[in-house]
Amino acid sequence: MSSHVRKAVVLLSGGVDSTTTLAVARHEGFQCHALSFDYGQRHRCELEAACGFAKSINVADHRIVKIDLGAFGGSALTADLDVPKDRGAEAMSHGIPVTYVPARNTIFLSFALAYAEVLGSTDIFIGVNAIDYSGYPDCRPQYIQAFEAMANLATKMGVEGRRIRIHAPLIDLTKAQIIKRGIELGVDYSLTFSCYDPDAHGRPCEHCDSCLLRAEGFRAAGIDDPAGP
Amino acid sequence: MSSHVRKAVVLLSGGVDSTTTLAVARHEGFQCHALSFDYGQRHRCELEAACGFAKSINVADHRIVKIDLGAFGGSALTADLDVPKDRGAEAMSHGIPVTYVPARNTIFLSFALAYAEVLGSTDIFIGVNAIDYSGYPDCRPQYIQAFEAMANLATKMGVEGRRIRIHAPLIDLTKAQIIKRGIELGVDYSLTFSCYDPDAHGRPCEHCDSCLLRAEGFRAAGIDDPAGP
Repeated sequence: MSSHVRKAVVLLSGGVDSTTTLAVARHEGFQCHALSFDYGQRHRCELEAACGFAKSINVADHRIVKIDLGAFGGSALTADLDVPKDRGAEAMSHGIPVTYVPARNTIFLSFALAYAEVLGSTDIFIGVNAIDYSGYPDCRPQYIQAFEAMANLATKMGVEGRRIRIHAPLIDLTKAQIIKRGIELGVDYSLTFSCYDPDAHGRPCEHCDSCLLRAEGFRAAGIDDPAGP
Repeated sequence: MSSHVRKAVVLLSGGVDSTTTLAVARHEGFQCHALSFDYGQRHRCELEAACGFAKSINVADHRIVKIDLGAFGGSALTADLDVPKDRGAEAMSHGIPVTYVPARNTIFLSFALAYAEVLGSTDIFIGVNAIDYSGYPDCRPQYIQAFEAMANLATKMGVEGRRIRIHAPLIDLTKAQIIKRGIELGVDYSLTFSCYDPDAHGRPCEHCDSCLLRAEGFRAAGIDDPAGP
């Protein structure tokens, strides 16, 4: 191992965006430490996908932190609310949907920051995307910049002058561009999982926002979804 | 219940600062929703104190979220490192001690933000203090301001123009001033607990930074510590 190993913490949910982000971080030369959360999500298949993908590309480490996000309720992804189905692009591009989990990315990035500080890493990767972003406020560039500014004031590393960076390499890409980038980097999308509301056998519903965005992304990229129907 | 109930989320550890902060929030007219964390801390007596105190002043709700902060290690409060003892004020005022838990306040405030959003509350109280602060970067005013700016970009409430505020009412006070303020507000400090390293019977060590700051605070306030030796 080189004495100049640059470690990065990569948030990994197991969907298209986070697996592509992990591939980007590795391509940029980082030793990758993946971090996933078991937060009582309805779509636990995603977590199994995260484990499978992390193993497949030999990350340095993969931690799964169990957190009690469901204790507060407030989202169709953790509470007993219906996941919206068959929304058109117009509906998806306006307003914040019930699948929004309050402060989710803030909580995830905060744990990533703790993990980074323990590792002595100044680099955190997150697969947020402001184009096909389904209306979540914590997927916007100005949010990522504000988190980064806060992180540099929050930590021993920041105080000691080591600059913490929150990398969001997909933030300006369409889903189709993300998929093309991932294919270039060798991402095996058959290992990924995107559905918010799979059936009891773990099969995607094909009607939630996440399924629709994924299908449209592969269609626009001109690539068959290897995990698709 | 009034139709103008103002709800606040108050981070409650069970020590002098957080119990005083809860009393301040209540005095300012907020309906208080206390939030504590079970994070594998060595000083679990603090958590029991938080429960006792919250009950004693009839909060609207008290949630305890179990989080796996110890999974990353890196602090004498969660890992198997020695808690420093009998450090003088000079040593305490310089550098970041091993009792620093990476990103702790950031993680706590992130959960408070999620809870606030579910409650429809824009007000979060935290008992950080920049005077007798034992050297933690995430207890400084610039950190609190940066978190607040981030929170307003992170959330549905922020996007919708409801301004989120992170209240840190003790930030400019000495420990003695905090204790005097608490006494004015009727805080029963016999219910609080401060030690980082209690013995097997839950008795304070009287030598860690937290015990020393508490003892000095009561001494300077000219008040006997009702939980003291």
